[in-house]
Amino acid sequence: MSNLTVKIPQDSFTQMNEIVLPNDTNTLHNLMGGKMLHWMDICAAIAAQKHSNKIVVTAAVDSVSFKEAIKLGDVVTLNAYVTRSFNSSMEVFIEVWTQNIPTGEKIKSNEAYYTFVALDSRHRPTPVAAIEPQSDIEKEKYAGALRRRQVRLILAGKMKPEDAQELKNLFL
Amino acid sequence: MSNLTVKIPQDSFTQMNEIVLPNDTNTLHNLMGGKMLHWMDICAAIAAQKHSNKIVVTAAVDSVSFKEAIKLGDVVTLNAYVTRSFNSSMEVFIEVWTQNIPTGEKIKSNEAYYTFVALDSRHRPTPVAAIEPQSDIEKEKYAGALRRRQVRLILAGKMKPEDAQELKNLFL
Amino acid sequence: MSNLTVKIPQDSFTQMNEIVLPNDTNTLHNLMGGKMLHWMDICAAIAAQKHSNKIVVTAAVDSVSFKEAIKLGDVVTLNAYVTRSFNSSMEVFIEVWTQNIPTGEKIKSNEAYYTFVALDSRHRPTPVAAIEPQSDIEKEKYAGALRRRQVRLILAGKMKPEDAQELKNLFL
Amino acid sequence: MSNLTVKIPQDSFTQMNEIVLPNDTNTLHNLMGGKMLHWMDICAAIAAQKHSNKIVVTAAVDSVSFKEAIKLGDVVTLNAYVTRSFNSSMEVFIEVWTQNIPTGEKIKSNEAYYTFVALDSRHRPTPVAAIEPQSDIEKEKYAGALRRRQVRLILAGKMKPEDAQELKNLFL
Amino acid sequence: MSNLTVKIPQDSFTQMNEIVLPNDTNTLHNLMGGKMLHWMDICAAIAAQKHSNKIVVTAAVDSVSFKEAIKLGDVVTLNAYVTRSFNSSMEVFIEVWTQNIPTGEKIKSNEAYYTFVALDSRHRPTPVAAIEPQSDIEKEKYAGALRRRQVRLILAGKMKPEDAQELKNLFL
Amino acid sequence: MSNLTVKIPQDSFTQMNEIVLPNDTNTLHNLMGGKMLHWMDICAAIAAQKHSNKIVVTAAVDSVSFKEAIKLGDVVTLNAYVTRSFNSSMEVFIEVWTQNIPTGEKIKSNEAYYTFVALDSRHRPTPVAAIEPQSDIEKEKYAGALRRRQVRLILAGKMKPEDAQELKNLFL
Repeated sequence: MSNLTVKIPQDSFTQMNEIVLPNDTNTLHNLMGGKMLHWMDICAAIAAQKHSNKIVVTAAVDSVSFKEAIKLGDVVTLNAYVTRSFNSSMEVFIEVWTQNIPTGEKIKSNEAYYTFVALDSRHRPTPVAAIEPQSDIEKEKYAGALRRRQVRLILAGKMKPEDAQELKNLFL
Repeated sequence: MSNLTVKIPQDSFTQMNEIVLPNDTNTLHNLMGGKMLHWMDICAAIAAQKHSNKIVVTAAVDSVSFKEAIKLGDVVTLNAYVTRSFNSSMEVFIEVWTQNIPTGEKIKSNEAYYTFVALDSRHRPTPVAAIEPQSDIEKEKYAGALRRRQVRLILAGKMKPEDAQELKNLFL
Repeated sequence: MSNLTVKIPQDSFTQMNEIVLPNDTNTLHNLMGGKMLHWMDICAAIAAQKHSNKIVVTAAVDSVSFKEAIKLGDVVTLNAYVTRSFNSSMEVFIEVWTQNIPTGEKIKSNEAYYTFVALDSRHRPTPVAAIEPQSDIEKEKYAGALRRRQVRLILAGKMKPEDAQELKNLFL
Repeated sequence: MSNLTVKIPQDSFTQMNEIVLPNDTNTLHNLMGGKMLHWMDICAAIAAQKHSNKIVVTAAVDSVSFKEAIKLGDVVTLNAYVTRSFNSSMEVFIEVWTQNIPTGEKIKSNEAYYTFVALDSRHRPTPVAAIEPQSDIEKEKYAGALRRRQVRLILAGKMKPEDAQELKNLFL
Repeated sequence: MSNLTVKIPQDSFTQMNEIVLPNDTNTLHNLMGGKMLHWMDICAAIAAQKHSNKIVVTAAVDSVSFKEAIKLGDVVTLNAYVTRSFNSSMEVFIEVWTQNIPTGEKIKSNEAYYTFVALDSRHRPTPVAAIEPQSDIEKEKYAGALRRRQVRLILAGKMKPEDAQELKNLFL
Repeated sequence: MSNLTVKIPQDSFTQMNEIVLPNDTNTLHNLMGGKMLHWMDICAAIAAQKHSNKIVVTAAVDSVSFKEAIKLGDVVTLNAYVTRSFNSSMEVFIEVWTQNIPTGEKIKSNEAYYTFVALDSRHRPTPVAAIEPQSDIEKEKYAGALRRRQVRLILAGKMKPEDAQELKNLFL
């Protein structure tokens, strides 16, 4: 089937640009983290939908840290693409850049991994195309996806830490 | 000043991706035109802000036609860039593509020209960088911007039709 | 059919009043143009629905210019009515007034023409009632609708400029 | 002062038209009452602002009943005007009509009285113009405002029932 | 049926916490009353749904007064529970507390009674469980529900004031 | 200072109840994960604000998994409280329950840890009260907070894995 032919990460590349509006901020005019997580999820879900041509649901979000304050009126640019697929699930990498308009200064503010499952019209998981990474960074993310998947399985209680060999190497 | 050095259209290139949600549609599940015009304005305003590093206000929207029904759940991709600037104003071209997720079919649904004015912190118009078009399509849009500006000035009552020489040639 | 009896413009008259809220404005507290275009579309669509008793979709927006800054807290009043119908399409005129509450000053900030197509329950264009203009201004708008329609057909690539006789007269 | 000259109810007349969207309804596609109360408050607040040329805050809402189910896609028309003012407070009457687009049927679905207080720029109550009712219905509402005010004062614990002479007559 | 067994008020207890955001306020940064009425309706509707396990629609709101200004950034806590049911309708009591974060000060800002009707899947009223009040305050609210219901029936034109014996006693 | 006296977890306990509305769902009527992450952030931020009496910003979200599909019309209940504070930062635990109204069935759908930093009025981190856990579960979460903090520091590149002794024990 056409959906199941191999695809490359750039086939799913998705960019979103948003302006930080008053309702997105707290009373110190900093963007609230939950709004950013919401934008990341929409951007990543569109990337997963472009890859799979299926409706998708969020299965997991890996930990996200917020280092820089993002201010009212800043322009937020989100770039997402599928790094690897596992049968019916897809890992999506999202990178967030924030630009202050008067200064033109642009900094990387966040990055995250979201995992989605593709569903058929009867709400059952359905297989998706495999990924063939092209660039060095895509190959590195493709390889790391295995380790990150072990972390998710452990955290979801579906794998024992002692069985996660790739992960154990990090601490030994 | 750094803002006033010449820039190329790609410096302001801005992409937005949106999913059509229930509140964006009428009871036949077609995207309402006003929502599209709102998205186009945000995407184009971000492009104008990236070009000018100033807060911008919408000065004009040229006529827009809606040929294709866009449906609930479709992914809408907007691409915008500044085609030409005139002292403190900028013309932005926006192209809209719509993708149906289950079929993967992607069609061009709209295009439009929005004009913005850059403002300084005291709300007065302020000059912006000139544009140096690179590709053939950018050069064509740069040239056509003069004619479209005449149309806007006539429609806004600031120019007499008989003085719009470029425009008269279209009908003669 | 009751829908197809002749109607007068006032049958479709629709007024909307809105307060400009923080999320509708940029960081200089000016109303963003896209929000105004969205309000205009809703107001005009209600007018077209009142005229046709059908679900309608936006087919075109003629060019709109934004002359006056509209500020946070201003009250925006939109008045719309159908000026003329063409088989299944309707031209709607919208006039926008903006009132500053503390000063009471009220200015006309915008006007626009939106075109809608009436759809039946199977999403196909369906005929609507004709318009019989009453007042002088309604008669003038009824007559001008023919010329504006030629402009839209040319801009949509469905008519050649040299065939638009009414329009050519403007430039000769 | 110009604000304190007598005004007539029509000076504050405000109309809003809204389409019932999916997010405004429960899973049976009926408009949720809270959304209607929100629209009523905005429409009535604009009327009070037009009367007073001041920022206003809601002081009270009299009881409202919801008799008719309002459906997804219906057009809701709200009409509001100031019936009487008491120093810095204003009573506003709102009438709501609901129209089903395919049938064209239009029914009165609700009515309500909202009370607002006008504030100056330091957030203190400030006097507003008196009302001079014109039509019979306006005169009746002007007279009844005194009785409704007694009910509000009793309910807010600021008047004893036995002192509300007009109200006692209703039950005797 | 399990729905129709007697329930206690705490079975339906529902709490909502909201932060007052910019779009919820007027230009003096006070929460608009309509937003509060909307939140109250959602909170009370959830309580009525928890009690009845049915979709519910708002049937009536008793009068509500707004005594304290609620400010941008304040945390609003709403507590709701069903006080009594009458065949297919339920009276819900809502109490609203407002907390200023920097000072920690918490005040009771509003209270209200909303009435809901439970509907079956064909949109017809359907019976709900009876209430068995437990605490003194619940017993008092259960008893008072009869009197408040008479007021609603009179206001809705479904009962004559002289037949409302409980109510008459208040004024005699 | 009153803010810096020891507090117990229940001082910051915050509950939110939300109904899943159409715009929160994808075209299969499943709640989108990003909306849930947004609700969790608001609920957790209110808990952190109640604990600290300061404006807070999100510093980190630990990984979250989504096991159960949450459907349109479901009632979502979020419970949050502060588990431990570290100078100016606070870890908040959030538990999410989802109730289907017609069946009454209630399941635990998610849980998460969010970390917030308290800011003073000049946007600088500011110390908050310590936590004294009371119940067994609160004590367990208080102890575990140290290990989870090491994970966050490693993931943010601020600690080397080999220095995280508590964490290493998990894999040895």
